[in-house]
Amino acid sequence: MLRLQQDSHRRLNSLTGEWVLVSPHRTSRPWQGQTEAREEIAIPAYDPGCYLCPGNLRANGDRNPAYEDVFVFDNDYAALLPDTPREQTDEAGLIVAAGEPGRCRVVCFSPRHDLTLSRMPVASIEKVVALWRNEFMRLDADPLIGAVQIFENRGPMMGASNPHPHCQIWATHSEPNELMKESTRQRDHLGHRGSCLLCDYLALELEKGERIVCENDGFVALVPFWATWPFETMLLPRRHRGALDEFGADDIHALADILSGVTRAYDNLFSTPFPYSMGFHQRPSDGGAHPHWHFHGHFYPPLLRSATIRKFMVGFELLGSPQRDITAESAAERLRAAIKG
Amino acid sequence: MLRLQQDSHRRLNSLTGEWVLVSPHRTSRPWQGQTEAREEIAIPAYDPGCYLCPGNLRANGDRNPAYEDVFVFDNDYAALLPDTPREQTDEAGLIVAAGEPGRCRVVCFSPRHDLTLSRMPVASIEKVVALWRNEFMRLDADPLIGAVQIFENRGPMMGASNPHPHCQIWATHSEPNELMKESTRQRDHLGHRGSCLLCDYLALELEKGERIVCENDGFVALVPFWATWPFETMLLPRRHRGALDEFGADDIHALADILSGVTRAYDNLFSTPFPYSMGFHQRPSDGGAHPHWHFHGHFYPPLLRSATIRKFMVGFELLGSPQRDITAESAAERLRAAIKG
Ligand SMILES: O=P(O)(O)O[C@H]1O[C@H](CO)[C@@H](O)[C@H](O)[C@H]1O
Ligand SMILES: O=P(O)(O)O[C@H]1O[C@H](CO)[C@@H](O)[C@H](O)[C@H]1O
Repeated sequence: MLRLQQDSHRRLNSLTGEWVLVSPHRTSRPWQGQTEAREEIAIPAYDPGCYLCPGNLRANGDRNPAYEDVFVFDNDYAALLPDTPREQTDEAGLIVAAGEPGRCRVVCFSPRHDLTLSRMPVASIEKVVALWRNEFMRLDADPLIGAVQIFENRGPMMGASNPHPHCQIWATHSEPNELMKESTRQRDHLGHRGSCLLCDYLALELEKGERIVCENDGFVALVPFWATWPFETMLLPRRHRGALDEFGADDIHALADILSGVTRAYDNLFSTPFPYSMGFHQRPSDGGAHPHWHFHGHFYPPLLRSATIRKFMVGFELLGSPQRDITAESAAERLRAAIKG
Repeated sequence: MLRLQQDSHRRLNSLTGEWVLVSPHRTSRPWQGQTEAREEIAIPAYDPGCYLCPGNLRANGDRNPAYEDVFVFDNDYAALLPDTPREQTDEAGLIVAAGEPGRCRVVCFSPRHDLTLSRMPVASIEKVVALWRNEFMRLDADPLIGAVQIFENRGPMMGASNPHPHCQIWATHSEPNELMKESTRQRDHLGHRGSCLLCDYLALELEKGERIVCENDGFVALVPFWATWPFETMLLPRRHRGALDEFGADDIHALADILSGVTRAYDNLFSTPFPYSMGFHQRPSDGGAHPHWHFHGHFYPPLLRSATIRKFMVGFELLGSPQRDITAESAAERLRAAIKG
């Protein structure tokens, strides 16, 4: 009899078709490896050296306006540029490359250098979500753009080089790997069953309850059955939405509220500003119809046992499959407790 | 006209079918984010507190023998255990899990606590390779085992919790994600063209030369066209080999020699013990014939610009596709120079 809370097993990621190895009995393993510095440096409300603060100079010589809520501009070190030629090269199907034009944007969440999503009022987060929606719609209408990736890297551990609360938007001509996998799986599910994969999955999870972290009228945050990062979560709208352009005021409010709830639970969990990468997956912007696509958010946080002990995705994870020790169910339980904490 | 050394483009990983985004113009981006501690601590030749040193006590109460070259034992904190039930659970194809039995082994490269592959004589590395071969053959014959993953995590940055030179073997019942992708692509290539994907790729790379790092009679080390980590390399046998069981004495020597060459180049590059995860991909151990499978090694090192500045695989990389700034060609050029250095 397989016991998911004790025996080694693998779980299928329904969204990508890939597997994660779960070794619940291994949580007792002592840790003698690298620990992370605790980030206790007091952050000022305004930093004269910060290129994101209102009124300051940026790398390209522009001066930021004295913005009062959100602010968006073109990334000064954009990984993608609109005038890149779309040419392809292909030698024997083995040396294959294609020009990748695109656009990179930076979105400041607040003029306050020291504010984070977890401490912003929901009404302020609504302004961020509304701006994401506008940016998505503008890029979605751009014939150059085939996919829009909105993401935030929070904390030095996740490669953020500036504590000023902000996210990035990388809009590519082609569909990135992860989106492609999710497109295929969702298309297949709709084709074979006549229903939306994530609508079906959400219904199943709501019935079970054990992996739910928090919910409101429009959104549910849960630890997916196939989570790879220790405290990974997924944000799912209850109503079927393909992308931000379909969001009404109630959806915007619900997403802002659930973002507030999840980020506060994270900060409470280890009493530390919780590092993570997060972002939203939505239907491609290729002009086609994507009835199978269900908008959702992913949070990928690296911490495992405390503010200073992280999960390393290394050897077996890079060469084989991701591996985790604590189960999705126990992670959800601890996050639920952290909401009250 | 697309210029691969200047314009943003994506490259196809022929082995997995996934893409990597390359943004060569972005190397000028200043870095204000997290830097890593330099690991300058002097390591003793013998550490009385190390559970891998000869004669010392392990977590399970066993005492290590006074071994003189290599030493292998069952991992005391094994992620995989042989007696796990192989049962499956499946709810609507959305909550899918399967018991994953397996075996985890630990291989010490040397009794010396302070020695690394890069500083071991080739004759000593040959003993390590010969032991990998024995272990592979034993596990390959075990009906429980479907795939054998040999890997080393080197350095605290890569989650290694002990500097004693060692690697791990995780032998799983099922085929891990990465192996599965490579199986599919290699099978398709042989099916469509009648030749081996990696034999064809190696021939193309040897003709071009620009991504070759070093070579000997039996092996070639190169930066693959589709490398994701800044100084990623791949080790390819010139002769078609599916797995270690087909290795003769000359293959063992050639692999030991190329491992020595590559790890020395890495250590020279930033004058630091170079962190990495590395490991070998070989045909599955499912008892079937795998003529399409070409044995190879992967090195995934995180450092980008110096001993203290690493590449972060975060936001866009986790949610979209891996991204790199320096091209594979410039990385290969620098590694070639580091061999002489
Ligand atoms: O077993 P170790 O060396 O303690 O653990 C290390 O390698 C494992 C396999 O890649 C990873 O799962 C762990 O996160 C890492 O810390
Ligand atoms: O653009 P940033 O925030 O400086 O850079 C950060 O996010 C990027 C997108 O995920 C990554 O490629 C970089 O490695 C990371 O440091």
